[in-house]
Amino acid sequence: MQKPTIPKGTRDFSPEEMTKRNYIFDTIQKVFRLYGFMQIETPALENLSTLMGKYGEEGDKLLFKILNSGDFLDKTTDEELFGRNTIKLANKISEKGLRYDLTVPFARFVVMHRNEITFPFRRYQIQPVWRADRPQKGRYREFFQCDVDVIGSDSLLNEVELIQIIDEVYKRFNIRVCIKINNRKILSGIAEIIGEADKITDITVAIDKFDKIGLEKVNEELASKEISAEAIEQLQPIICLSGSNREKLETLKTILKSSISGLQGIKEIETILDKIELASLVSDLELDLTLARGLNYYTGAIIEVKALDVEIGSLTGGGRYDNLTGVFGMPDVSGVGISFGADRIFDVLNQLNLYPENLMQQTQVLFTNFGVKEENYVFPILLNLRKKGISCEIYPEAVKLQKQFSYADSNKIPFVVMAGENEIATEKLTVKKMSTGEQFQCSADELCKIVSS
Amino acid sequence: MQKPTIPKGTRDFSPEEMTKRNYIFDTIQKVFRLYGFMQIETPALENLSTLMGKYGEEGDKLLFKILNSGDFLDKTTDEELFGRNTIKLANKISEKGLRYDLTVPFARFVVMHRNEITFPFRRYQIQPVWRADRPQKGRYREFFQCDVDVIGSDSLLNEVELIQIIDEVYKRFNIRVCIKINNRKILSGIAEIIGEADKITDITVAIDKFDKIGLEKVNEELASKEISAEAIEQLQPIICLSGSNREKLETLKTILKSSISGLQGIKEIETILDKIELASLVSDLELDLTLARGLNYYTGAIIEVKALDVEIGSLTGGGRYDNLTGVFGMPDVSGVGISFGADRIFDVLNQLNLYPENLMQQTQVLFTNFGVKEENYVFPILLNLRKKGISCEIYPEAVKLQKQFSYADSNKIPFVVMAGENEIATEKLTVKKMSTGEQFQCSADELCKIVSS
Repeated sequence: MQKPTIPKGTRDFSPEEMTKRNYIFDTIQKVFRLYGFMQIETPALENLSTLMGKYGEEGDKLLFKILNSGDFLDKTTDEELFGRNTIKLANKISEKGLRYDLTVPFARFVVMHRNEITFPFRRYQIQPVWRADRPQKGRYREFFQCDVDVIGSDSLLNEVELIQIIDEVYKRFNIRVCIKINNRKILSGIAEIIGEADKITDITVAIDKFDKIGLEKVNEELASKEISAEAIEQLQPIICLSGSNREKLETLKTILKSSISGLQGIKEIETILDKIELASLVSDLELDLTLARGLNYYTGAIIEVKALDVEIGSLTGGGRYDNLTGVFGMPDVSGVGISFGADRIFDVLNQLNLYPENLMQQTQVLFTNFGVKEENYVFPILLNLRKKGISCEIYPEAVKLQKQFSYADSNKIPFVVMAGENEIATEKLTVKKMSTGEQFQCSADELCKIVSS
Repeated sequence: MQKPTIPKGTRDFSPEEMTKRNYIFDTIQKVFRLYGFMQIETPALENLSTLMGKYGEEGDKLLFKILNSGDFLDKTTDEELFGRNTIKLANKISEKGLRYDLTVPFARFVVMHRNEITFPFRRYQIQPVWRADRPQKGRYREFFQCDVDVIGSDSLLNEVELIQIIDEVYKRFNIRVCIKINNRKILSGIAEIIGEADKITDITVAIDKFDKIGLEKVNEELASKEISAEAIEQLQPIICLSGSNREKLETLKTILKSSISGLQGIKEIETILDKIELASLVSDLELDLTLARGLNYYTGAIIEVKALDVEIGSLTGGGRYDNLTGVFGMPDVSGVGISFGADRIFDVLNQLNLYPENLMQQTQVLFTNFGVKEENYVFPILLNLRKKGISCEIYPEAVKLQKQFSYADSNKIPFVVMAGENEIATEKLTVKKMSTGEQFQCSADELCKIVSS
């Protein structure tokens, strides 16, 4: 018989991994709730009509499609079958697909439930998503997203609070990060004043390389993208932009003085900085003009988080979008949101070994088993511990003591109780503290005190 | 534009529903952990070779199958296409399917990870499963299972602990239940002594109707199933079996005295009863010979839970199985487990309105917004509350006060803070307690004390 496997790009999570992952989700979730965000969940299956066309042509290909139930060929003619046009055929034999991200289902949710929702709607959502991507290190076909969004409010207070949330989450994880912000309107302003509005992506990609390759090479790259010499000339102070956020903004104000959009973006960043100063963040907040993620999607703030002590992609990202729900027939709803990448956070915590001590301890006490008589002696003691909320177990069989101890060891159980004839006679318990090997006798009440402390 | 929908049989969960569902999952999970069970998760996608043939022919049809990525027809000949044999074709164009239950993926997990697992393995798993069943009231195509199993131990202590877990869970929910137990070996014993070993399902189905239709009709039904008059005669004391569990067992001992299997089953129930008496359950525990769920699957104990105050199917069910992993090439691993039906528990809690008071309160304080100056006055107060772990929000825009209050109302926020020019001047806050309408002035410190208490 063949050993069973799981589909490539998917993972089983062992108890140890689950403990770590729960720590991540719980930490993030607690912060979300502290800020008044409310949880929703959407089904894993969505109609393909909801998903298709939302992620570009490439995204459509990466959707996992569900074969229709029953006679899935009943709407397909012989001719269509012979055609072997798999894209067309897929639409005939499949109506549902797996969630590709949490954003589109959220937009669908808002439109479907618009009459039950009180806006501004502060929602969070922590669920797996599926993509038929080529699996590789750190990239899975099933992975988890933790999204938090405010929808139905233009206020920059929302941006401020999201930045605070990022700061609070990574503070709790003890992960040192830099929070980068930018504003789409500033980018538009730049493109505008240099007269290269359609080349803004090329420009940000090139500027982004300044630290690595230097000014000369950046300019060469810009030229190779057919950006005019005049425009490149105008870009020089922006490529070399440095100093504090306030200094950068002052420089930008001069450069972008003729762009309404650019000045608006600068003002937005200033408002955010004013407010965020009151919050005294732990993390650095840095205005980074090269930040341009999902450019076609974001309309205002753009936010990204980089770990300082580990070489890894961004841990959190997001921004403001002005027409999330338009595609489902509900225009003019502005939103702003960010997404925490649980899998990358998991990798960083593992690499830096930042999990809290004793995270893996769940069961506090293992009662070893010497047979029915001894079982009956310890059973009420065990029940009493559980009544007090102390997690404990009794080994279910009277096997060799060594095996029972190795069970405690594997499961990181800190206290092991032995009770044989002597203990029954003296109404005591022998307790072994696994971390030190120390062994002592005590009463049931004393045991309770020891493990509660 | 068409209003978006979700696939039939699936559900969105609103913040209110999520709060209730989290209460259910958290309660169950806490009890699992108190008993030392450890969480695992498996991917939503499994290879169809893992799933097919495990749930019978009907089950195979109810699997959601994933269309292979890319050119899914590349392994299919023209002849196979013409054949339009959708069952065969599905196997050609689909290699993966959605998890149908948690049991088969668990078995697959145990076999794949056998070398990392320390047995006995006490695992729990709370995840959605998918079935292409015809949706109807209370039956969904995506629903959640909460499974808890001990694998790799024959000890009846495991059965005892699972019964305790059931009792503890429903005690915490305040749902009154009856826990029914039976033993497959007793059922085999009955079939054996009346010489109708192959008719055990017909027999239990008929006996089950005793309370509703009476002895005469039960006997008629048995006869209609071609059970011999002699066998029916022998079944009479079993059909009318009554009294306490111990009395029932005494009667059974006489009836089954010639069946080794039957006596073994009786002894197992007795051992469980002996131990469970030490645990003083809140719920009734009742030996019910008509209990025969998943008969071909269970080999020892059979357990089921019925709500006493609501007409609904079983809330929890399970039993002992002796060969869970055999189908994946790992024979002779005994296990025992139960599954909590989160959706039914949800229905019962809703019907009886048994949710804890204030469950829906998440955000404790809403700071209303009168403009930038007032924002800056309350912002540090808000930050300080959050530092103390108190969940609070500031309304992001200075809109009409009525709108801000209706936001607090919809989101069940118990305290609303107002701070305008007067409050700023006197360094006070005006607070409205939403439940009573009471309104008072206090300092920031006093507010903190009020909402913490």
